[in-house]
Parts: sequence; C-alpha cells; structure tokens
Amino acid sequence: MEIKAIKTPIIKPGDDVIRVLLDSMKTHDMALHPGDIIVAGEKVVAIAQGRIVDLETIADEDVTEQARRIGGKYHIDPRKVKVIMDESEEILGGVDTVLLTKSYGLLLANAGIDSSNAGKSTNVILFPSNLWGTARQLRHALERASGVQPLGFMIIDSRVQPLKVGVIGGALAVSGFQPVEDIRGQKDIFGRVLLIKQIAVADDLSSAAEIMMREAAEQTPFVLIHDAPVTMVPDDQVKEDAMIMPMDECLFMNVFKNYTKDKILLPK
Amino acid sequence: MEIKAIKTPIIKPGDDVIRVLLDSMKTHDMALHPGDIIVAGEKVVAIAQGRIVDLETIADEDVTEQARRIGGKYHIDPRKVKVIMDESEEILGGVDTVLLTKSYGLLLANAGIDSSNAGKSTNVILFPSNLWGTARQLRHALERASGVQPLGFMIIDSRVQPLKVGVIGGALAVSGFQPVEDIRGQKDIFGRVLLIKQIAVADDLSSAAEIMMREAAEQTPFVLIHDAPVTMVPDDQVKEDAMIMPMDECLFMNVFKNYTKDKILLPK
Repeated sequence: MEIKAIKTPIIKPGDDVIRVLLDSMKTHDMALHPGDIIVAGEKVVAIAQGRIVDLETIADEDVTEQARRIGGKYHIDPRKVKVIMDESEEILGGVDTVLLTKSYGLLLANAGIDSSNAGKSTNVILFPSNLWGTARQLRHALERASGVQPLGFMIIDSRVQPLKVGVIGGALAVSGFQPVEDIRGQKDIFGRVLLIKQIAVADDLSSAAEIMMREAAEQTPFVLIHDAPVTMVPDDQVKEDAMIMPMDECLFMNVFKNYTKDKILLPK
Repeated sequence: MEIKAIKTPIIKPGDDVIRVLLDSMKTHDMALHPGDIIVAGEKVVAIAQGRIVDLETIADEDVTEQARRIGGKYHIDPRKVKVIMDESEEILGGVDTVLLTKSYGLLLANAGIDSSNAGKSTNVILFPSNLWGTARQLRHALERASGVQPLGFMIIDSRVQPLKVGVIGGALAVSGFQPVEDIRGQKDIFGRVLLIKQIAVADDLSSAAEIMMREAAEQTPFVLIHDAPVTMVPDDQVKEDAMIMPMDECLFMNVFKNYTKDKILLPK
C-alpha cells in the first residue's frame, strides 16, 4: 500500500475540487489507477461548498436561552452554540470550549465546526453538507474526469481518542469501497471474537491519510492511497450507517456512563 | 509512505522474533532503510515470550470472591477474570464477556488477554511483558542484526472505537520515534486548537499497519513502514507516558460519565 499527499493551491468557495485535484496531480506527475482511493479533508470540501457562516449575521433573537446557557457554561460564543445546535441531532455534553455532539450520525466535537482559514474572525466553517451524497458525487465526477474506474473516495476529519493523547483520522463518508469489513470465522476467544469481528477499514485508512495531510492541511487536502487491501463495491452496496455503532451497544458508552472515581471495581 | 506486510512462519514460544523477521524479509526480497519503522502485532511478541497461561493450572483457592462475582456478572470464566485482574491496574466496568480495563497505563478490553492460537482451549495469551522495554530491546536487536539505523519499532493491538463499528489499530509501545507530535502554532478556533494541538502519530501509523496485518494475523505479524513523516529520536526522548491521557482530561470520560438517555441536552 502506498500513501501520498497531494499538494494543491488554496481552495476557495465555488472551486471545483475535482478540477483542482486532477490539475494538482498532473503538476506533480501523479497518476490514478483502478482501485485507488482519494481521501479528502472535510474542510476543503466544505469551503468549496461555501459552507461558511458569519456569526455576526445571526440575529440576537435567533439565539435561544438554551444556547446562551450552554455557551456560558462551556465558554463558547452563544451564536456559535446556535450553529452547533442547528448542525446536531444531540449534544451529549462538553468540556471547556468544546461540546461533544452527535451530528450526521457521528460523534463529533462542536459538530465539526471550525473557524481557521475562514476569512474574518467571526466566520465559522461547517461540515460539508450531505456528506455521503457529496462523497458519491465527487467520486463519480473524478471517475468521469479522469477516465479511471473503479475509484474509492472518502471524506475524513481529525478526532480525539478516549484516554489517549492526540488526534487520529476518522472517516466521515465513504464511496466506492466497503467501509467496514466483516471477518467472522476467525478463531478467537469468546469475548475477543465479539471485538474483532469487524475491521474499521475506512477509519484505519483515514488515520494513514491523516498522517500525510497533517503538517499543512491547507496545502495537502487530498491523499492518494494506492493498492489498499479494500473491497471495491458499487455505491448501492455501501451502507451509510455501516460505521455507526448504536449507543446501547458501545463499550465506552456503557462503561463510562457508570464511571466515577469511587466506583472503580479494582483500585490498587 | 509505503506500507508492506511481512509474511512469516508461525511463531512459537522461545522463537527469536528478530531472527524470524529478518529471515522472512530476506525470503521476500524486502530491504530495511534508515528511518524505516517495523510494526509488530502484540500477539506474536507475547507468544515468543511464552506469555501463555493455562487456566487449568490456576487453583480454585487463588480465585477470589470478587473474581467470581465479576465473572458471573459478565459471563467470563472466573479464572480468566483472575488473570485479567492480575494484569490490570483498574477495571472500569464491562459488557457481556468483555471487561474494560486500565492495564499498562492503557485502556484495554480484557487487559489484552486473548486465547486464539494458544494451543489447548484453556490457554490464554497475555500481553507482552514490559511493553516499552520490549519495544526498545527489539529495536536495538534489529539495528544490530541488520546493520541499519536508525529504525523505529512499535508494538500494536486492535481496539474498539466509541460509537463506531469495527476495530482500528492502536499503539501499545514505541521505540525510536516520537509517538505524539505537537503542532502548536497552527491557526484555528479556540476550541479546535485544543483538540488538534497534538497528532497521535503512532496511533495513526498503527491503523495503517493494522489494515495490512488483519487478514491473517498469524502469517503477517509484522509490517514495514517506509518513508513515514515521523521524527526519529533516541529512546531517551521517547516518553513512556506520552500517549496517555489522564482520566480527568479525557473528553469522552468527562462527557460519558454524565450520560444517561434522559440527560441529553438537546433531544429533537
């Protein structure tokens, strides 16, 4: 498997990201082959879509009492809290300056809202709209424009890990390959089988891509993955909920909700 | 960055894993270059160390009342619970057949104990002993035997993700390169800066390696990563606690401990 970052010019609202991607690959003598996967950082897709909100355009009367209360508690601009709430199905809680939200079916920090490189200081960048539809549309546009197929396409983001320092890459939406692979039948202990029954292929590849993108996200918003051991499939076989674990089945959710310092079962 | 799985014969207790690794690389015409990272699955290292316990050798009187109670509650052999407890600093809780433990400073399922390919059905395989010391020792042995340096070495495992389906790779111990990289100075929103201040390089690489190892863990227990964008450093600069997030600072821990269905802030 080979993983290469793709340097591009800075992408602006209204840009055709596939055009920019292919021009940049040409400039750097990079070729696409059938089975290759293109990974896009969520931000560059969102910026091209114009998913930017100026908090100053939000009227005072549109900011609810609840948004003000949450903003005060977690030290976040209430207008930004309003935007986060608009982008979220649930807010699970928060720590200082960060809310943990369920948005687009995923667990995200601040609903994925970010304000770097968004122009004026009151601007925030939302997630790309219609993540799965966008991934599909970009993959098809890429196959058409390049004449190469099948290709895979994935939109990714950085995410925090439980009880570990630093962010890793995570898949937001996938097109053209199986995001989770079932390896049932592998011999293992009873409990262990439950845990490793499925491999989060898309998330593993997102982390591999993240390490190539990270230094200067704005100049290397795309990553090319060649020869990845994935199963290419038509989009009607890629389920949009394939990566989502229901809350009730989540090991962390089930354990952490009961956790308090004095409830540890085995303090030494 | 290039990532390749290394096929080996089946590794048995007492085997010299570095000898097996280098012989296998030679067989498959694979070369090491300065700056390369070798990733080892934890299991192959543990098996070579003979870290196998036959549950039948555990006397009834050595299984505490607490181990029996936990085993009964979560449907785990109480003798196995005893071994898990011996390997853990804390048990945070569990779901059916799986305990979430803090072991070796890390958050693990069942203290990393596994029983596949362990011989008889009552055998379980523990984690490698002295994870960080073992990683260092294997790296030095590899540099000596190959004549190539500097090299990186990492021991990894599969791990579950919060609210996402499927396992990803995670780093257990690292030698020869910086496991977490600080990218302070990147322009971003206030909350966002807190989140992406540090990149979990070792975990990102572990996921990339996991996807190459996964199909037949026993035959491809090593992965070679070439040209990774990491910072090679002497081991005295690699801190053993660099990857560990204190419980009090963990976003998930802080949020999930308060979570119950009726406490969601924003149900729609």
